[in-house]
Amino acid sequence: MSFSLHIQLEKDTFVIGDFRLSRLLLMNESRYPWFILVPRIEGLRELFELGREEQISYILESNLLAKMLKDVFKAEKLNIAALGNQVEQLHIHHIGRFKADACWPRPVWGVHPPKAYEPDVLLTMKENVRTYFGTKLKAIDQVLQ
Amino acid sequence: MSFSLHIQLEKDTFVIGDFRLSRLLLMNESRYPWFILVPRIEGLRELFELGREEQISYILESNLLAKMLKDVFKAEKLNIAALGNQVEQLHIHHIGRFKADACWPRPVWGVHPPKAYEPDVLLTMKENVRTYFGTKLKAIDQVLQ
Repeated sequence: MSFSLHIQLEKDTFVIGDFRLSRLLLMNESRYPWFILVPRIEGLRELFELGREEQISYILESNLLAKMLKDVFKAEKLNIAALGNQVEQLHIHHIGRFKADACWPRPVWGVHPPKAYEPDVLLTMKENVRTYFGTKLKAIDQVLQ
Repeated sequence: MSFSLHIQLEKDTFVIGDFRLSRLLLMNESRYPWFILVPRIEGLRELFELGREEQISYILESNLLAKMLKDVFKAEKLNIAALGNQVEQLHIHHIGRFKADACWPRPVWGVHPPKAYEPDVLLTMKENVRTYFGTKLKAIDQVLQ
């Protein structure tokens, strides 16, 4: 496994754990519950480059994450997007949106400089998310961070 | 089939045809090759609400559209996004991006007011896209427009 996370994603996010296919990241932007899936395959740029089996895994993981945003964060709307104009490694944003959030109804990219998490809020979020996913998610931050 | 297209999508786009699951639309914004898939199921807001079979269909159609953007339009990067903060009907943007385009590397939403297509350019685009998809796409604009 030669997979490694793009340096920009490493800077901007916290690793929550690994699903079967994708690494789950949390953006260090406390305005929104903003997660990112990164399929752990070196050299991917576009969703259609995933193989058939991997696409099924991706969909399952995206669904899980979407439902978590509804169940845990009570997101009113989900924004799911594969952009990658600046960071070429394939990564798919999953953002919980609220009518009262900082830039509703606009997309969140490039509007505000990120507002970092307070350490205790971050710790609680990580715990809640890991508890929700249970064994579906392998915690790896002990090793990586 | 009680499906009907959201009035805002009807205003902003041209109908190209129907895949098995989704209606294929072209945004009337000539700066980018910007297509939209709308699964023809009434009342959907989020991708995870699609059934298992429908999710497979959606992935296949999204792949087809992505490859078309590469093959026909020579897109350098794809931006694929389900946002829906303003138009609640589930619709998934598929936009071909270029390093020389009007707002690279930013996302396209809300940057410029759309620049409408010239009728002859539009006609050629529709023809090229329909020829590319062949029988995978059922042309319906004769009926609808």
